[in-house]
Amino acid sequence: MTALETLLQHRSIRKYKQDPVPEDILNSILEAGSRAATTGNMQVYSIVVTRDQEIKNQLLPCHFGQKMIAEAPVVLTFCADFNRFNQWCNQRNAEPGYDNFLSFMTAAIDALLVAQNCVVAAEHFGLGTVYLGTTTYMADKIIDVLKLPKGVIPITTVTIGYPAETPGLTDRLPMRAVVHYETYNEFDAATIDALYAEKENSDEYKKFVTDSQVDNLAQVFTQKRYSKKDNVAFSKSLLSVLQKQGFMNND
Amino acid sequence: MTALETLLQHRSIRKYKQDPVPEDILNSILEAGSRAATTGNMQVYSIVVTRDQEIKNQLLPCHFGQKMIAEAPVVLTFCADFNRFNQWCNQRNAEPGYDNFLSFMTAAIDALLVAQNCVVAAEHFGLGTVYLGTTTYMADKIIDVLKLPKGVIPITTVTIGYPAETPGLTDRLPMRAVVHYETYNEFDAATIDALYAEKENSDEYKKFVTDSQVDNLAQVFTQKRYSKKDNVAFSKSLLSVLQKQGFMNND
Repeated sequence: MTALETLLQHRSIRKYKQDPVPEDILNSILEAGSRAATTGNMQVYSIVVTRDQEIKNQLLPCHFGQKMIAEAPVVLTFCADFNRFNQWCNQRNAEPGYDNFLSFMTAAIDALLVAQNCVVAAEHFGLGTVYLGTTTYMADKIIDVLKLPKGVIPITTVTIGYPAETPGLTDRLPMRAVVHYETYNEFDAATIDALYAEKENSDEYKKFVTDSQVDNLAQVFTQKRYSKKDNVAFSKSLLSVLQKQGFMNND
Repeated sequence: MTALETLLQHRSIRKYKQDPVPEDILNSILEAGSRAATTGNMQVYSIVVTRDQEIKNQLLPCHFGQKMIAEAPVVLTFCADFNRFNQWCNQRNAEPGYDNFLSFMTAAIDALLVAQNCVVAAEHFGLGTVYLGTTTYMADKIIDVLKLPKGVIPITTVTIGYPAETPGLTDRLPMRAVVHYETYNEFDAATIDALYAEKENSDEYKKFVTDSQVDNLAQVFTQKRYSKKDNVAFSKSLLSVLQKQGFMNND
């Protein structure tokens, strides 16, 4: 299968067979990850590979009990990581200036490009994957479980295993919702309605609205799935993680 | 070529032929981007496709004059974007709670997974790409040029074109520098020395040190390429962009 075919067939897989991921395949996935572009070739990221059931069980509440964490044979936590680079600089009489917000973003970008390469490589091998957005919500707890030192912040988590489900492709908005030509083109109200019409009229999402006991699909997001109250609480927590891990010395 | 082969053969390409990228290939690249995982299927990102020479010339100083911006036939700016989603919520009597730091990170993650998919897809088609880290440094200026509204922040930029150079694979640290098993394993000083030995002893990097007139490779980074002074200035600027674009209401 070509790279394009692999990309176009992506599904999030949340149910896995018990089969382990062979060591050589895992190593190929990680190597493919390491070939992603990295800022100045600094490689300011790290990947924590967790397969031990006890540690996966400790991670489980950090991810709100999403059972993929306990059930998948492999859990990969992708981290923004200036720890190793800073240590190298310190051993070379070179004063690192990477304890600031810009450096955090640089390292987070590195981590995310690596993560996506690992996902594509895993799918190349017939494995299923899913991203867990809970990583940034509960970064403080994940830091404790994975013993992440100063300079390291978990950015995203991917679980990997052989698929035990075969979901269809997820719907997407029309491409003109996400692609702008030359400069940004603001949408008028009628265009927004048109972009979301197919989604709002689908039986799958209508059931979502009914089950959530709200008036419409947008309210499922704002009231149930990603509420302001939660987002504000997680924002405060994540910003204090940046402080604690040494990325907020911006003066 | 398989997805794994495409990933393992990645090179950053900074010199391009004049040939344009055919419309159908560009559309396939963007579609492959849109298949990347996205938080809650919200698709809180956007891609600005810039091909107009005049606008590329305006972007050029935002990227410190790196000539790929002016010379590549296609410039893609990947943005964290809650603007469209917020607009939809507002039209549905659903109060969006996405004006905070957590939501910025959610949207940045979406944008970066899409970006990496686009890079892999471009390389599938024989195109060359390079990421420009300058995007986060100069986000304020890029916002002006690309007319990005509130709720939108540029995260990374990729230039695309047919390669006019054939560089070798870039060196990487040994895998044990970036992969940790079960939990994080801190490095002792001798291990850091070992991890960086091959890089520090290579002729390419020795020339880098001589040309930079510093004592060692780490100092090339701390004194020349990514200095504390620059990082602090860009951090301040990026944090004020987050404020201005409406992602710092964390109370």
